[in-house]
Order: sequence, then structure tokens, then C-alpha cells
Amino acid sequence: MESLKRKIIEEGRVLSESVLKVDAFLNHQIDPFLMREIGKEFAARFADDGITKILTLESSGIAPSVMAGLELNVPVIFARKRKSLTMTDGLLNASVYSFTKQETSEISIASKYVSPNDKILIIDDFLANGQAALALIKLAEDAGAQVSGIGIVIEKSFQKGRNLLEYKGIRVESLARIQSLNDGKVSFVNETMEGIGL
Amino acid sequence: MESLKRKIIEEGRVLSESVLKVDAFLNHQIDPFLMREIGKEFAARFADDGITKILTLESSGIAPSVMAGLELNVPVIFARKRKSLTMTDGLLNASVYSFTKQETSEISIASKYVSPNDKILIIDDFLANGQAALALIKLAEDAGAQVSGIGIVIEKSFQKGRNLLEYKGIRVESLARIQSLNDGKVSFVNETMEGIGL
Repeated sequence: MESLKRKIIEEGRVLSESVLKVDAFLNHQIDPFLMREIGKEFAARFADDGITKILTLESSGIAPSVMAGLELNVPVIFARKRKSLTMTDGLLNASVYSFTKQETSEISIASKYVSPNDKILIIDDFLANGQAALALIKLAEDAGAQVSGIGIVIEKSFQKGRNLLEYKGIRVESLARIQSLNDGKVSFVNETMEGIGL
Repeated sequence: MESLKRKIIEEGRVLSESVLKVDAFLNHQIDPFLMREIGKEFAARFADDGITKILTLESSGIAPSVMAGLELNVPVIFARKRKSLTMTDGLLNASVYSFTKQETSEISIASKYVSPNDKILIIDDFLANGQAALALIKLAEDAGAQVSGIGIVIEKSFQKGRNLLEYKGIRVESLARIQSLNDGKVSFVNETMEGIGL
């Protein structure tokens, strides 16, 4: 997605060879117009998959997911990172190990909002080591639902997330795929050369 | 806002005389079409205020805020409840006491995303005792910005939040105002009788 790549180049900040900060438009400040474009792109890529619900993770997954939900005409459910006091009945849980924070956290959804009839599109802001995506897949599958695919805003293709997901047979659609963050510079995967195109 | 009130009646659950659970469409599962309507309504109410930025709080404030940002053509910034590892420079902080959870938490924004030239619209999902709203006002004011008003999706008018904010001279626009949750039933403030109208 060219407008997203441009935004990453212009407003992203490379903090290390593995950390890209996009607080200017996605993770802290949010550009609503870019989110709408992202939502439309996810909707186009999964238009023929009979998606009935979008599953994401608070907080940065919410904006792109709501825009995709608007386009696909389906509700969004966001997994919570901490259990809320008023959310006690019928929870499904999964653990996420964060390599960045070096800690394991629990995420959960209320099982009543996902049914075995659902075809789920999982959306998240980043794909790195795939731990959050795997946990979201577990939540959907524990509810008996089918995961139709995963939509990722920014994929760090030099980390193992995509491989892990594809090994499980999950379709991954990433709107920007980053090949490297070496030398303080963002290089994207050359998808034309791979015959994928954008 | 009639469609919101209808949704609250149909899908909200009264858990006690002070707790209304709207996990079905706002706080866990999200209805993107209702969010768009809510965004349009906030935008209409603050159309003449020269808003330059929306400030909200993760996670449930994000969806209505992004939709309002789209309508008002301004960016959204969400305050974080925990400090992120990659967000270390130039933070503004404020404390929020939660009467529900009986604990104080810190919220923060990166100061560089709010400037003294900004006219801020604060948006949040609920207004109860006003503690989150006061903390968001503090963040905006510490950045030197002007707070033009607060947009609330659901106001619990039997709690003191609105009074506290109005006492500070802050304009409060709530899309649904709940008078009471007594007897397991949602009663709205009769705004026509108050001459406000909806």
C-alpha cells in the first residue's frame, strides 16, 4: 500500500535494527484518513471470504479494525490485555509473550461474541514474532470459529511472525512489509520482484 | 442521540445501580456503523469550534474518536494507560483515580503531539465521576493547548462528573445522558423537559 509506505518513510522513526516507531500516525497519534484507507484495503483483500467478524487487540489495532469493519459491514471485537472488573463471565484467554517487553501477558475475549459460525478476520498493527497473532488465533479457535486470515498494517518481514503463521496455514495480508531497519533506514520487501505486486 | 439510546436499551446490561455494561457495541465488541454516527454527531456539535485535534483515552475512546476525527478532518491522539517501552521522551503525565477499580493509574501523552496552538476536543466513552476527563484536561493544559470541550458517548448523570467539568467552565456534550440505573432499568435524562432538546 503505497500511501502507507510513504507515511512510514516520512513519519516513522527507526529506533534500532528491530524497532520502528510509528507513534505519529498509528500507535499514539492516529491519522483517521490513513486508517480509512487501510480499512478499505483490508476489506478489498478479504472481500470474497465471507468474513462475519473482525478480531483485534487493544489499543493500536482498534482504529484500522473499525474502518475495515465499516467497509465489510461486520462488527469488531477487541481482545483486552487486562481483565476488566465488569467482564467476568465466559472469558476465553490466551498468553502473549512480548520479546520487546520480555514479559508474558494475558489477553481475553468474552466467548459470547464469537460463535462457531463466525469467519474471523484478525487485524493487528504490527507483525513481528507473531506471538500476538497466534494468541488471537487461539482465542478465535477456542470459540470454535474459523480464522479466514490475518490483516497486518506493518510487517517486520525480517522477524519470524509470517513464517510461523503460514506454517499454520493462515493467510497473511500485510499492507507494508519491512525487509530491514538497518543503518537507521526503512527498506521494504520488493514485492514486485517476488511477483506479488502491490 | 436516539439511535444510541435505542442501542443502550436493547443491548446494554444494567449490572448494578451504578454500572451499565455496553460490551456489546462499545467497550469490547464495537459496532462500526454506530461509531460512525457518533463521530458525525460529535463533529456536528463542535463544527464551529475550530478543533485542531482530538484527545482520548485508550481503549474504548479510540473508535468514536477516530470517526469524529475523520469528520472534523483532524488527527486523534490517545493517552496511554501504561508507559510503552518505546515511548520515553517528552511525556506528559496525569493520575486517574478509578472509583470502580479503587486504584490510581497514570495516563500519558507525548508532549510533541499537542502544541499551544491546538484547540482540543476531548472524547471519552463514559462520564461518571469525571476523573478520566479531568486527567485528559490536565494533559492538554500542561501542553499549553486550549480545551474546547468534551464529547461523551454515555454520561451517568447521577454521578458528579458533569458538575465537576462545568464548574471548571468546560463545555460537555453527551450523546446519551442516563438519569438512573435503578431497578435494573435505564432511564435517560429528559432533555426536552430541560429545554435542551436532542
